[in-house]
Amino acid sequence: MPYSLVTGGAGFIGAHVARSLLSSGKQVIVLDDLSGGFKENVPEKAIFIEGTILDHELLQKLFNEYEIEYVYHLAAYAAEGLSHFIKRFNYSNNLTGSVNLINESVKHKVKCFVFTSSIATYGALPPPMREDMTPEPEDPYGIAKLAVEMDLKVSHEMFGLDYVIFRPHNVYGEYQNLGDRYRNVVGIFMNQLMQGNPLTVFGDGSQTRAFTYVGDIAPIIANCVDHKECYGEVFNIGADKEYTVKELANAVIDAMGMKSELRFLDARNEVVHAHSDHSKIKKIFGEYSKTSLEEGLKGMVGWAKATGAKKSSKFENIEITEKLPPVWLED
Amino acid sequence: MPYSLVTGGAGFIGAHVARSLLSSGKQVIVLDDLSGGFKENVPEKAIFIEGTILDHELLQKLFNEYEIEYVYHLAAYAAEGLSHFIKRFNYSNNLTGSVNLINESVKHKVKCFVFTSSIATYGALPPPMREDMTPEPEDPYGIAKLAVEMDLKVSHEMFGLDYVIFRPHNVYGEYQNLGDRYRNVVGIFMNQLMQGNPLTVFGDGSQTRAFTYVGDIAPIIANCVDHKECYGEVFNIGADKEYTVKELANAVIDAMGMKSELRFLDARNEVVHAHSDHSKIKKIFGEYSKTSLEEGLKGMVGWAKATGAKKSSKFENIEITEKLPPVWLED
Repeated sequence: MPYSLVTGGAGFIGAHVARSLLSSGKQVIVLDDLSGGFKENVPEKAIFIEGTILDHELLQKLFNEYEIEYVYHLAAYAAEGLSHFIKRFNYSNNLTGSVNLINESVKHKVKCFVFTSSIATYGALPPPMREDMTPEPEDPYGIAKLAVEMDLKVSHEMFGLDYVIFRPHNVYGEYQNLGDRYRNVVGIFMNQLMQGNPLTVFGDGSQTRAFTYVGDIAPIIANCVDHKECYGEVFNIGADKEYTVKELANAVIDAMGMKSELRFLDARNEVVHAHSDHSKIKKIFGEYSKTSLEEGLKGMVGWAKATGAKKSSKFENIEITEKLPPVWLED
Repeated sequence: MPYSLVTGGAGFIGAHVARSLLSSGKQVIVLDDLSGGFKENVPEKAIFIEGTILDHELLQKLFNEYEIEYVYHLAAYAAEGLSHFIKRFNYSNNLTGSVNLINESVKHKVKCFVFTSSIATYGALPPPMREDMTPEPEDPYGIAKLAVEMDLKVSHEMFGLDYVIFRPHNVYGEYQNLGDRYRNVVGIFMNQLMQGNPLTVFGDGSQTRAFTYVGDIAPIIANCVDHKECYGEVFNIGADKEYTVKELANAVIDAMGMKSELRFLDARNEVVHAHSDHSKIKKIFGEYSKTSLEEGLKGMVGWAKATGAKKSSKFENIEITEKLPPVWLED
């Protein structure tokens, strides 16, 4: 039986997609360099290969050794705000690494390449973002994601590679990396609470996001390859209900059953309001977003408490320090 | 006196821009890895550093050692048609390399970053291409150029880096690499003539291009930094008059004063008609494109004959061979 390859399958969304695939009876290979993921996130039934998508010789070997039918490419360093300061790393990791995978997928005639892009491709366009809007990314992370989307399009035209692109946003849930200070506000808040620290909020916390429970979207990402009408298409995916970051902070405090204060930091250069229109994906998969923020946080809290606080390590190779938010330099 | 850094200054357009800068009394450093350029193209008065923009430590050293006021970034591997087959090389060289330069330009507060993008960013949009059209690149080369343009935009917003972007097209003239079979049809034709080979034409040769004499555009690229109204802008630049590739072949045969036949190959996946609107650049620099195809070819022929035929070497690290035009595999 051929395999589904999940890159980033030891990471957050990838770990869920790998589980969805296994529960649909697929054989799964997880490729992950454990830079942001953890071996214990990889489901037991998956074949785990520790390695990076930057190692194109490893990829060649992998595709020669296994018959890979579908590629789910979720490996990325998704620290959008930090990407200004780590441009080289961002483009190498998120674009060149993706292109290595696209090369092998073309050569080995993979049936469908599923790519998780990002709402970051839209930049500061007026929400709700729709898939027919022309992307205007505002940071190197969004640019790299958009470049991969464009490369998939030309790879289809030139070589016939089929693909499905998702642009998720503000996903949270079990297996999120609690020790990454640069991304994933829900995980950051839970970690700060467990460490007895105040919750850090950029600006006044009035920026809004629609926080998306991972369990609502992972099965759709996994199953999209069985829906031919998805091929060659781009889909927003995520929750509809917006919350301010301040509201989120209070919801996380409630869900954790702990007390804490908010620590307001200088606003950083980020998109203030970002939410997406999801009518396109709902036409195919129906009303998929069913988990309320309260329920989703409750599920995640159980896992987070079992996992425990993680030391929030610093990114070692900052390329530009000018304008870096000072909190990111704290020990 | 501070320096102007010209990357790719041993290459084709870069060698001309370096000369324009010197003749305006500027001090010039040329950085070139000689992958497509030649040491003898570097003007004598320039400081020449052999190295690649991929070597970010070398760039750090260079920017620490010299006070660099302006960056003219012309280093690229501009083989558009080949870029489908060398995606990894294309993105590393043309995007990550550019980003290394942008990083240093931000850190050292360069006054203006001049970037030569390409008409390839437009893809197959209906000509004439205008700067206000939304780019739709059709190949990895165009995608990489567009990603650099987008990164310059966010680097300006985040760090205040000023920039000017040019999208030239179909440039020919002295110092063109005659030994590159993958790009620059004028140089390819001259080389084939000097080798006594037939001129190779993809398809029926009815695809049209407006061939641009390098001497018409290099001074504008060099001098744009003195025109503040150019900052933050994108400009098409090139000739207006279109020729079919077949007409070009005959014009080159005439200019060389030699006889030859045309060898028609299977059409490749390329944009059929590509020409640009140049009214935006003309508003600032006037009617700059003054050299007719006949005159331009005449100038180039003298140089090409003095230089002599070059062995057309093959690109060593093709990543995908599927659909590669067979002529590119010939010895």
